Amino acid sequence: MEREHNFLPERTKWKRQLFRIIFKSDTKMGRLFDLLLLVLILVSTFIVMMESVQIFDAKFHNAFVILEIIITAFFTIEYALRILTIKNKKAYIFSFFGIIDFLAILPFYLSLFFPITKYFLILRMLRMLRIFRILNLMDFMNDGYFIVRAMKNSSRKIYIFLLFLIIFSVIIGSMMFMVEGHREGFESIPQSVYWAVVTVTTVGYGDVSPGTPLGKFLSVLLMLAGYSIIAVPTGIVTAEMRNKRQEIGKVCNRCGNNDVDDDARFCKICGEKVI
Amino acid sequence: MEREHNFLPERTKWKRQLFRIIFKSDTKMGRLFDLLLLVLILVSTFIVMMESVQIFDAKFHNAFVILEIIITAFFTIEYALRILTIKNKKAYIFSFFGIIDFLAILPFYLSLFFPITKYFLILRMLRMLRIFRILNLMDFMNDGYFIVRAMKNSSRKIYIFLLFLIIFSVIIGSMMFMVEGHREGFESIPQSVYWAVVTVTTVGYGDVSPGTPLGKFLSVLLMLAGYSIIAVPTGIVTAEMRNKRQEIGKVCNRCGNNDVDDDARFCKICGEKVI
Amino acid sequence: MEREHNFLPERTKWKRQLFRIIFKSDTKMGRLFDLLLLVLILVSTFIVMMESVQIFDAKFHNAFVILEIIITAFFTIEYALRILTIKNKKAYIFSFFGIIDFLAILPFYLSLFFPITKYFLILRMLRMLRIFRILNLMDFMNDGYFIVRAMKNSSRKIYIFLLFLIIFSVIIGSMMFMVEGHREGFESIPQSVYWAVVTVTTVGYGDVSPGTPLGKFLSVLLMLAGYSIIAVPTGIVTAEMRNKRQEIGKVCNRCGNNDVDDDARFCKICGEKVI
Amino acid sequence: MEREHNFLPERTKWKRQLFRIIFKSDTKMGRLFDLLLLVLILVSTFIVMMESVQIFDAKFHNAFVILEIIITAFFTIEYALRILTIKNKKAYIFSFFGIIDFLAILPFYLSLFFPITKYFLILRMLRMLRIFRILNLMDFMNDGYFIVRAMKNSSRKIYIFLLFLIIFSVIIGSMMFMVEGHREGFESIPQSVYWAVVTVTTVGYGDVSPGTPLGKFLSVLLMLAGYSIIAVPTGIVTAEMRNKRQEIGKVCNRCGNNDVDDDARFCKICGEKVI
Repeated sequence: MEREHNFLPERTKWKRQLFRIIFKSDTKMGRLFDLLLLVLILVSTFIVMMESVQIFDAKFHNAFVILEIIITAFFTIEYALRILTIKNKKAYIFSFFGIIDFLAILPFYLSLFFPITKYFLILRMLRMLRIFRILNLMDFMNDGYFIVRAMKNSSRKIYIFLLFLIIFSVIIGSMMFMVEGHREGFESIPQSVYWAVVTVTTVGYGDVSPGTPLGKFLSVLLMLAGYSIIAVPTGIVTAEMRNKRQEIGKVCNRCGNNDVDDDARFCKICGEKVI
Repeated sequence: MEREHNFLPERTKWKRQLFRIIFKSDTKMGRLFDLLLLVLILVSTFIVMMESVQIFDAKFHNAFVILEIIITAFFTIEYALRILTIKNKKAYIFSFFGIIDFLAILPFYLSLFFPITKYFLILRMLRMLRIFRILNLMDFMNDGYFIVRAMKNSSRKIYIFLLFLIIFSVIIGSMMFMVEGHREGFESIPQSVYWAVVTVTTVGYGDVSPGTPLGKFLSVLLMLAGYSIIAVPTGIVTAEMRNKRQEIGKVCNRCGNNDVDDDARFCKICGEKVI
Repeated sequence: MEREHNFLPERTKWKRQLFRIIFKSDTKMGRLFDLLLLVLILVSTFIVMMESVQIFDAKFHNAFVILEIIITAFFTIEYALRILTIKNKKAYIFSFFGIIDFLAILPFYLSLFFPITKYFLILRMLRMLRIFRILNLMDFMNDGYFIVRAMKNSSRKIYIFLLFLIIFSVIIGSMMFMVEGHREGFESIPQSVYWAVVTVTTVGYGDVSPGTPLGKFLSVLLMLAGYSIIAVPTGIVTAEMRNKRQEIGKVCNRCGNNDVDDDARFCKICGEKVI
Repeated sequence: MEREHNFLPERTKWKRQLFRIIFKSDTKMGRLFDLLLLVLILVSTFIVMMESVQIFDAKFHNAFVILEIIITAFFTIEYALRILTIKNKKAYIFSFFGIIDFLAILPFYLSLFFPITKYFLILRMLRMLRIFRILNLMDFMNDGYFIVRAMKNSSRKIYIFLLFLIIFSVIIGSMMFMVEGHREGFESIPQSVYWAVVTVTTVGYGDVSPGTPLGKFLSVLLMLAGYSIIAVPTGIVTAEMRNKRQEIGKVCNRCGNNDVDDDARFCKICGEKVI
């Protein structure tokens, strides 16, 4: 989800103008184009979803196919124009959104040569990711970057936590296999581990649940553990977000206080003017 | 839920007095009126709930209807008096609570002209929102405003987070549709997305649950994801509340800056010593 | 759960000594007495639990009754000695633990006059609360007070939050009653509200779950709401705990910095010695 | 999970070199050895899991047995070499990882003398814990220590919280036993307590759920309680992590105090200026 700020248009005037409409949203036409794109992405996603529902597919199959052709045609033209109007073509094509743009039209052309299977659906669903490009342009993504950055910075700790959790689940799952092995849903260790994860994450489908007193006792321990340790990822991310907030603070030149608030005019430690 | 502080009474003396009873709670009569209102709202909500239970409705239908008429009569008179005693009538009628007050009596009068359906019930339930007016008067809502403000300030980030979550759920749901499509509850993408949301939010009804090993493996990933990323909204709101809290911090005597940090020795706005 | 520090013993020497054993834990005998009490409470609780299991009750009914008599006898003597050895008898009898001590022996004597029903069980279970007295003596409760105080300070906000949540659940429940009213588990508004609370708190039993597409869509919204707003109580309590932590900090005499850490020897703001 | 930094090799040159390969990961061979170990642990765990699945065990039983022998042989040689090349042999054997290393090979040799039962599986699963040794070497465990330390420091509070939670669950469970005792899943207090824990931790299997209106009402209270008090462990751990984080803050040049707060201008231990 890199920012596309460093993309430059081709020299020709009409290409430059088109570039501005397609890649930017600082003109009225540019914003209209974004809106159209957003609508088409949502319609396209909606069609794929409806297509998967048999009663709708039975009734409206042709309508779905025609709409799909129209949208794909639009996306294809758009993709071509993007390549045409941009200067650093290679960089665009292999950028995150360049690949997404290509994947958005690929399934249709593939389906001309290969029999259509439901495996195409997932490819077509990836179009949804194009929503982020529009949000990106609409300057809505600063908050998104905030979240992504906080998650990225705490990811190492989260991974370690997940590793703890998985190993814990595997061991408890193995114990449950010994205790409840006769019972449906605990027939093997992988099955019991599935149950352990369902329990420790507090999801609790109930498709599998313990039957013996000992099994129930172990479950209770697992639930209490899961209920308590949810505090860990929360603590990690909260601490990270708090930090992010502070890092952006200004620094006082006199005393070096690096916790100067954005709206401060004097350092709160030494009284020095900071603006 | 705006404060009604700027509402003014009509000039006539009895209207002024009545206004004070109805709109304020700084007199004994005013507090009694609030209490009566609170009781009536709770009784009214209770009646609607009981009416929806067939065995109670069969037995006490007439009692319910009579009570409803009495309460609506009271609410109608109250609504009329509110309009009568207030100076800026238009502002009141179209204020949040003005509309709620009107909606509280509307269903009854509608039911005189239209056949009663259960769709009236939801309208009658909206009366419950009037509770907030009373809490408002009872100065109980400062904490409410605290919560609402913290949520409002973090709402952009929460929306982005929810968008991530929804797109993630849709993509995982689509994958599960391919993997478990033959199984009840995964027959279409919308159904599978429903399952994905049930899982990622750790609700886990169990009305739909995966059957194949691959499906269970995907579920486990989804659960671990849901268990970890619940940290994100929590982190956002916690950071926001911490910020809100500071705003109520110390106040600078010279410039009135009310955002003096706990560890500040100089006002960050005017440089005045604050300890 | 008030501290019993201000309780004083009677004058007589043996009463003073007994008082120290029973009420304090600063002697070897006192600690032994506490341990005995802890064991008896746990045994007593365990017996009540086992008694409720039919197969155990059938086999060991007499043993349970005899043990119960012995334990009650001990608790009765203990209660009598507590009253005997304490100076401010009235204050003790009506203190929190005084009432709990009385309730701990009441069910047995009641059962002599009234037929034993399972409603006695809950009274007998209240004995468990006596555990807190022992933890109290064992100086284990500082952390408990920390938690209780943080919860008490944030309780107003939590109540308001719960009120929001309940009103929200009632309204969504009413809507589900209209949408899914034909379906088992949504036959009335109270039933639907039960489902709404099960969903919004992410418990998700699955004894009731939506059937129609619209109902599922509403559920998804409710789940996402519940998943996001769990951040609110968490944020409130976290902010409160952070505050508690700071309040206990020492204050610098020179600059008034009230965030002096426990292990600090110099003020971190002005360099003044703080010990 | 203590660090093994203070382990020293034997004097002989080849032992010293071997020690470096086995115990350290600062040479190419050492890293290769770690990688091999990691793969073998994962393969071994995978085999145990697959062995527990009947259809796989039926097909590949012999392959599993042979692989198990090979891996155990490798682990045995490794264990022997560890003892051979290390100087402080006793310290190693009784260290955390020393015991784990021994347990990793024990089940196989036990199975030569005793009939193989599924109770061996759990012992074999403990091999997984050896993953932490490798992460340890790979310097990945700093984040792990961060988590473990934060949990350890807040453990007293978490225990008290869990005690509250358990006593609360037992009392609510007893009440539900009285209310819903006739219903399957609430036949005894232990059963009802199991349900109460399933509910309060928001797991909600749904294998047991309330049937009467009063029971549902109590459940709703329990769910709301569980939904709110999850804030408590989260608050505790978050506050703790925030504290931990600061410890890594600035260091005083004069006295080496490594707990200098971000906003400190003087070392709180020796009074030295730190900026």
